[in-house]
Parts: sequence; structure tokens; C-alpha cells
Amino acid sequence: MHLKPLDAKKKLSLRDSDAHAPRHAPSGDKLKELTDEQTTRISELQRVFYADGRFALLIVLQGRDASGKDGTIRHVFSAVNPQSCEVTSFKVPTEVERRHDFLWRVHQRVPARGIIGIFNRSHYEDVLVERVHGTMSKRVLSERYEQINDFERMLSDNGVVILKFFLHVSRDEQRRRLQERLTDETKNWKFRAGDLDDRAMWKAYTAAYRDALRECSKHHAPWYIVPGDDKGVRNWLVARTIADTLGELRLRYPPAPPAVRALEIK
Amino acid sequence: MHLKPLDAKKKLSLRDSDAHAPRHAPSGDKLKELTDEQTTRISELQRVFYADGRFALLIVLQGRDASGKDGTIRHVFSAVNPQSCEVTSFKVPTEVERRHDFLWRVHQRVPARGIIGIFNRSHYEDVLVERVHGTMSKRVLSERYEQINDFERMLSDNGVVILKFFLHVSRDEQRRRLQERLTDETKNWKFRAGDLDDRAMWKAYTAAYRDALRECSKHHAPWYIVPGDDKGVRNWLVARTIADTLGELRLRYPPAPPAVRALEIK
Repeated sequence: MHLKPLDAKKKLSLRDSDAHAPRHAPSGDKLKELTDEQTTRISELQRVFYADGRFALLIVLQGRDASGKDGTIRHVFSAVNPQSCEVTSFKVPTEVERRHDFLWRVHQRVPARGIIGIFNRSHYEDVLVERVHGTMSKRVLSERYEQINDFERMLSDNGVVILKFFLHVSRDEQRRRLQERLTDETKNWKFRAGDLDDRAMWKAYTAAYRDALRECSKHHAPWYIVPGDDKGVRNWLVARTIADTLGELRLRYPPAPPAVRALEIK
Repeated sequence: MHLKPLDAKKKLSLRDSDAHAPRHAPSGDKLKELTDEQTTRISELQRVFYADGRFALLIVLQGRDASGKDGTIRHVFSAVNPQSCEVTSFKVPTEVERRHDFLWRVHQRVPARGIIGIFNRSHYEDVLVERVHGTMSKRVLSERYEQINDFERMLSDNGVVILKFFLHVSRDEQRRRLQERLTDETKNWKFRAGDLDDRAMWKAYTAAYRDALRECSKHHAPWYIVPGDDKGVRNWLVARTIADTLGELRLRYPPAPPAVRALEIK
């Protein structure tokens, strides 16, 4: 069982039921074991990925509030070396950022070669939030899709491997998780009143996500839709996709020239 | 057994023998168990440290080539959440950086509150490398010590908790490790010919480190000298110092107001 890149030619509905764990998905100890296997693979591959230095890996995480972006990062990257991993959480743009094009702040945080860069939210917010809450024209929206596709293609042509995950959570599961942020005192700090405004616009967000995912899923920068209601299954599927992608890069430790290898240190 | 902050009033010799693991230091499975205990503590405390948001933690790692800076980061922070941990590796300053004061590039990378920031090398290079290889006057050198002390005090006054570790490795152990970078093909990429130039200046570096550590070990930003020849003992002692420091901060999850906690999500 593994995630498949979104086929942009097919219809996409993002139903609540698609957020449930797939039938026959592993659970319990078996699931934990399978997940550990993948996070260990990521940690091992990361070392040679860094030494190899030919590629960067950019992982984009999108999803509604409480869809598990933070939790995915915590669990999937629990074993990585922080020295070659960078996480950027994109918040509401600052005044300075708003005076630039929407890709300006994003481009600055693209990982260097050898580095795994994780975007917790991303430039996709700019075809979601403004569309739902603002007054973005259709023309501007379709221009932005194209600008995103051009940008991601340029990155890909320059050695940046791109994986994009939409953490798909059902309306009911979101309710449970938001409620938990209020009842569990160690989670109070995660609650934002604005989350409720976004929840009220559930359908508008579904439409905005559906269009963005279809318009911007390309062979060189695919979207994966992750069933997100079951946290364990979500982590396993994301980890597996990342490990498989790293595994396919034919990474190698750069050798030193023979004359250097023959040196004797005194 | 734990590390003590350097007492700047005492003489400091940085002998090779001080790089060996302390007598009666744990080893084998016991050492692994003790280390896991500390890295787990760090990972648990990191969560409330981030939520609390009152402090930043800045960890400075200095040491000769092959003293284990990369390895310490990999092992001590193996369980941290990369979302609230940043590592900055300071290399030879770029042309742009050289046109600024020596603290300019460093200040930009100071962690925000809630974040653990790790400096792999730091502003201390600027009282080491130039002194050993360059033509830095005594006056400039002592001015820099003062500027560093002022800078670190300002950070500390503004909520940045500072821990500085000197990874102390013996000349013989460095030889073994550099040689291994040549014989082990998966380590070739770590070898730099420049490391041999620095090794040739062993005594000059010892003097430069000794003075820098003593001049800049303050109550609010102490230096810890870590016996670095035994990697396992090194990791354990560093992890323990960090966990103890986090543990002393009386961190707490910020509570939401009662009216918010009483909300029912629909």
C-alpha cells in the first residue's frame, strides 16, 4: 500500500470518506514497526543525500487546520539529523512580504543541495486563503497556478526534488481535534480563534484545494493526497513516499582522488 | 558525573590527557541507556519549550577539525523535532560577510524564542583563525573578546539561554579520525586538505582556544570543556548538560482563557 501521485486528468472530489484510513491499512504494533522502518530509511538515506550534494529535497505540506502538519513533521522526521533539515512555517505574510510577489519569501527558503527542506504551509496558501476570504479574480488565480508551475519546474530543473502532500482530514475529525485543543491544557496554545472562521468556510476551501491540487500536480512536482484521519497511517504513508523517493536517486558518497586517499596523516 | 562551567579564574591548560573520557565514566550498554535517557528528555522538554515561547536556546559548538561537532549534533539531537530546531554551520566568511562586522552574520542566525539554535562553529572562529593564521593585533583581539561578551550579554538579557561547548580532542585521536576519512570511502567527502594546515598549527590553536574560552566564559554564557576522545561519553555529557538546562527553566504550556476553553466546536 502506497500513495500515488495525483492524476490531474481525473476528477477529484476530496470527500470526507477519502480522509479515512484505507481498508486493510495496517494498525497497532505492525503499523508502528512499518513506520519505524521508513523513518530509519529516511535517516540513513539523508546521510548519503547530504554527502552526495547533487539534489535538494523540498517537501510541501498543506492541509486544513488540525490536519496534522505539525504532527507529521514531528513523527516522520523524528530521526533526521537537524543539521541537514530545515523546516519553514509560513504564517500570514508580514508587511514587508506583502510588498513583494507571493513567491519571494518562498524562494528564499528553498533548500540548498544536500538539504531536506520542509514547508509547513507554502505558496499554495496564495491560491487558497485569498480566494476563499478575499476578492481574487479568476484571471489572477489562473495566472498564479501558471506562475507556481513555472517556479516549481525551474526548481526541478535545478536539482530540487519536489514532493507535495495534502493532508486530507474529514470535517468530523477536525472538530474532534479542535475540541481537544480546548480540553487538553497542554494543547491550548495551539488554538487560534481564526481556525473557526476557516472551518465555517469548509466547502469553499474544499473547492479551492481541489482546483489548486489539480492545476499544479505535475510529473516533476506531484501532489499526494494523504488520508489524514488516522495519524499513524498518515505518518507511515508520508514517510514511505519520502524514503522511496530518496531511494530512487542513486545517491553515492563522493570519492576522494587516489592521491588524497594515499596520504598518511602525521 | 556532569560537566561544570569553566571557571575563568582558574588556569586552563587543555592538555591532551584532558580529552580522554573521565575515569569511572560509563561505557557500553549502560552509556547508551544513559544517553538515550537524556536525548528523550531533550525531545520532551523541547515541546513545552516551544509552546512556552519565553526563551530561545543557543548552543555553540567549537572544536578542532574532527573533534566531533557534526557527530555531536547528529547524536544529541537525534530525537528533536526539526520544526523548532535550527542548525547553522558557519563556513569561511563570504565576500559579502567580510564587508560587515564579524557579528553581523551570527546575529541573523540567533534562534527566535521557542527555538533551539545550534551553531556549528560560530563567532569564536573570529578570535581563533585570524589570530593563528593572520596578523591580528593584541588590541583588536581583546576588543573582540569584549564585543563578544557584550553581544552575548545582550542576547541573554533578551531571553536567549546560551550554552557553549568546546569539544576537546587529543592530537593522537585527531590523527586517527583524519586518517579514517581517507581510508573509509563513505567519509572521503569530509576530508579537507586545509585540515592538515590547521593540524600543523596545533599549539597556536591551543593557545587561541585557551584564551578565548577563559576571556568569554561568563555566568550567563558559560563554556563547557567536553572530553571528546570517546564519542559516546562526549554525547552523553553534552546531552545531559542541555537537558538539565532546559529542565531548570520551569517551562509551562500557556493556558487559554476560561471563556475560550468553554467553547464548543460545531
